[in-house]
Order: sequence, then structure tokens, then C-alpha cells
Amino acid sequence: MNITGSTRVFMIVGDPVAQVRAPEVYNRLFSRHAVDAVLVPMKVAPAQLAGFVRNAFAARNLGGLWVTIPHKAAMQGLMDRNDALATLAGAVNAVRRADDGAIEGALYDGVGFVKGLDYFGLPVAGRRVLMLGAGGGGQAVAAALAQRGPALLAVANRSRQRAVDLVARLAPTFGPMLAVADSPDPAGYDLIVNCTSQGLKPDDALPVDVQRIAAGAAVVDIIMSRQPTPLLQACAARGIVAHAGFEMLVQQIPEYLRFFGLQQLAATLQDDMAEVRALLYPR
Amino acid sequence: MNITGSTRVFMIVGDPVAQVRAPEVYNRLFSRHAVDAVLVPMKVAPAQLAGFVRNAFAARNLGGLWVTIPHKAAMQGLMDRNDALATLAGAVNAVRRADDGAIEGALYDGVGFVKGLDYFGLPVAGRRVLMLGAGGGGQAVAAALAQRGPALLAVANRSRQRAVDLVARLAPTFGPMLAVADSPDPAGYDLIVNCTSQGLKPDDALPVDVQRIAAGAAVVDIIMSRQPTPLLQACAARGIVAHAGFEMLVQQIPEYLRFFGLQQLAATLQDDMAEVRALLYPR
Repeated sequence: MNITGSTRVFMIVGDPVAQVRAPEVYNRLFSRHAVDAVLVPMKVAPAQLAGFVRNAFAARNLGGLWVTIPHKAAMQGLMDRNDALATLAGAVNAVRRADDGAIEGALYDGVGFVKGLDYFGLPVAGRRVLMLGAGGGGQAVAAALAQRGPALLAVANRSRQRAVDLVARLAPTFGPMLAVADSPDPAGYDLIVNCTSQGLKPDDALPVDVQRIAAGAAVVDIIMSRQPTPLLQACAARGIVAHAGFEMLVQQIPEYLRFFGLQQLAATLQDDMAEVRALLYPR
Repeated sequence: MNITGSTRVFMIVGDPVAQVRAPEVYNRLFSRHAVDAVLVPMKVAPAQLAGFVRNAFAARNLGGLWVTIPHKAAMQGLMDRNDALATLAGAVNAVRRADDGAIEGALYDGVGFVKGLDYFGLPVAGRRVLMLGAGGGGQAVAAALAQRGPALLAVANRSRQRAVDLVARLAPTFGPMLAVADSPDPAGYDLIVNCTSQGLKPDDALPVDVQRIAAGAAVVDIIMSRQPTPLLQACAARGIVAHAGFEMLVQQIPEYLRFFGLQQLAATLQDDMAEVRALLYPR
């Protein structure tokens, strides 16, 4: 990695930001594929986000921003325009200056998630899907799942109103496939997705009763900390197909790269993916 | 160089910025000495400088700024406070957030220049010094030269008023050693410093009549482009001691590092200096 005066600079904006793995992942890709770019972390508090973002783009060699906690929702409101999934989910995790000068946002969490399902060989179209959790992660995932045309996408949330709100936001676009699930009972679903934070703490209850999951169903848990999560362990014990959702980070990489105009790099990552997974896998 | 989420980020702000060598120099030092920091270029137009600088420091892991053309003078006016030389010269080339939250500026061009004189073995105290040029570079160099206590520091400038203004600004601090030189005649001076831009273009006249330089006198030319400059060549032809001023960039390195709290790195650069000179030498 040789940073010069003509290097394109990208930033990942978060608070905290020390935990992000993106600089290691992307700088390795830039360096290996001779892309003159660098990704650096920027720790910006919520109160200062708006001023920071607007003024950062005064730098003409700023290639764009990665956006992480807790800024994804606030960032969406700071954009001149957003892509469809960012608008639906009310969140942004990628920001760039468009050719016309507008600052525009995109959201790749959901895209990454459903591409992760492809990677796992789990179909969505025509299937019955139960989503647990309607928070930030759930909103991103729900919109992208709905785009894949499931027979049913039911959303359960401890605070029911949040599920109602999410379904109401997506229903105008995706229609009657959407429903509020009155309980997290997994019986009768083909795919169960955990987007709650249950499992982050060691003594958390499981977000779903694993005993009631159908034998042929699959589970994905997007909790990013200690792997395998309690839910994944419980599924494994019962022989239920279950995957770690961190793959959504891996699958977003080519999306990010294309968004930032790095099409050629996005198209030539095949040999890097094993190493990228090793870097991104939660520890 | 392994950039992570906890890496301290520095920026060099200029317009243009593609020509700067600082990222190569400092990132090599950071990497070799295991300092978790990175310096990236930021191309910011003058109209956007104020907003950019104030908001960049919203990032808590921004270690500070290097400042280059054309922003040094404007940056001085954006600071909460400036060091003595920055105040005297009306310019800043280093910016940091102080412990009390204030944004403070310093100017190391002049310090680097006089430390370069030490490196060349050229004394200033008690000597008669002629400075050619009272522009940005001249102002920085003049203040630092005056601090070294020459017998006379005479400033010549094509537009005389600029020399008058510079002398008027420095005189309250440094007293009667300062004078306006009515011509660039070098006769009778021990040290002649070229801070004009004469020599940047191939057909420029020399800034001084080399035939009239005293035999024991020395010359330093701070023109940074093609080396040796026409002035240095003319001096060499007459056997006059003459040095390239780019050493001022080299000599500023430990000053910058200490300003940014990197005292240990500043104290252990001995083995790096040859390579640093090779990187910084104008090409």
C-alpha cells in the first residue's frame, strides 16, 4: 500500500469505530489489485455527523463513505437522494458524490443478506419466511427479502408496534406477502431469520423455540459476535440447517465496490474471498 | 502498514495535493516504527477550507493536519490559537486539537529552514543575512532567521511595500536587526537566501547578481523544483557555498511529529534520514 498525493480516500464513519474490520479488508483488496485508494476510520459522534459528512465531501479526492453504527438511520436523512432499499429501510451504509454533485446514499445490508442466502443455497421466492426483530438490521433485511418474492414474510417483534410499522412501510411496495407475526413461533416457516439482539449476551434466551422449527426449514442468525451463536448451536444440535449472518458483510463487498466506481475490482475478487471471510468472521 | 478501526488518521490538506510527498514519507516512518497512524491527502478548495477543517476535527481519531499550498495563510486565520512563528508569519502548516479542545496551528517552515542551516553548517547569529522575497515562504523563513539573532536581516522584494510590511511585522519582536534592502545587491552579506520564485521557470533571470556575492558567503535557494536550480548552478560555477532549501522539509519532520505527540518516533529517525531525503528531493 503506497499512499501518495493522488490517492483516492474513503472513510468508514462510526462511533465507536475501533471494532470495524472494513479497513483491513478493503485496503488489502486495494493493495493487492493495485487500486490507488485507501479506507480510513473516522470516529464521529452523532451530534456532529451532519456537518462532518457535508464538509468531508468538500475534499475532491474523497471517494465515499462506509457508514456503520450508530449512523445508518441518521445518514439516510442527510442525503440528497437515496436508493430504493435505503429509502424503504430508512438507512444508508454507503455514501458517494454523484456526477451531478449530489450526495447519495445506498443500503447494502439487505442485498448482502439475500446474496448470502444464495451463497448458502437457501431460496426465498415462494417460501414462507419468519423474521424475528424489526430494528435497524431487520428493516434492511426485510426490504431485500421482500424483493425476492417470498410467499409470506412475517415479522415478529417483542414490541409489536415496531413490526406493524415495518410492515406498513413495506406493504405499499410489496403487497400482501407481508404480515405481522403475533408470536415468534417458527412452526410452518421455511426460513427463520434472527435480526434481534437476543444471543448477544451469554444468558439471553433463544429468540425462537428451536423445538418447533420444521425439519426441512433453515435458520440464519445475523448476530455478529461470538460464533457459533446460541441459536446456531441449538439448531445444529437438532440437525437444522443454520448459518451465521456475517456472510452479509462478505456479500456486500462487490456491491460497495461497484457503487464507488470500482467495477473492475468488484469483478475480480474470486481468489480473495477465503481470506476476506477469515478477516470478517466474528471473533 | 495495517490500517484498522483504531488507527489515528492524519490529513494533508492542499489544492492541488497530488504533488505532495508527505504521505509517502510519513507513512513509511509510521509503518517502520510501528506507529498506528496514517497520513492521507485531502484536496480541498480554498472556499471550502474553513468548513472542512472545523468539521474534520469532529472525528475524534483525527490526529491533525498538514497544510500545504494554497492554504497556509488562510489556515492561520481559522485557528483558535497559533504558535509564535505562525503568528509572526501569518501562516500555519500544522494543525492539531489541543487537550482543552482548541484547534491550534503551528508553522514549521522557518524552523525547518534554520535547522537546515545547522545541517549545512551555516551560522546565523551575528551574521549579515540578505533575504530575497517577502512572500509566504519568505515570511516563514524571516521570522525563524530573526529568532537566531543575526547582526542584520535585510529583506529585498521586487514590490518594496511587501518587504516594508514584513519588516514592520517582525520589528516589534526582533528590533533593529531588521531592515528593508533597497536592492537585491548581495555585496557585504554573509548569507543570501532566495525565497523568490525566480528560478521556477527556465528563462527566469537569477534573483541576485552572483558576481557580487562575497567569496566567503553562502547561498540557500528554497526553490523546490528542478535541482540544481539556476542560482545554485551559478554559485557552484563561482565556487560559492550554495545549498538546496528542500532540506527545510526534511528538518521539519521531527517538529511535526512532536507537535502531534509522536515524541518517541521523532527521537528515533536517525536511520531513516537518508531515505527520507531521497523521497523529498525535488524531481
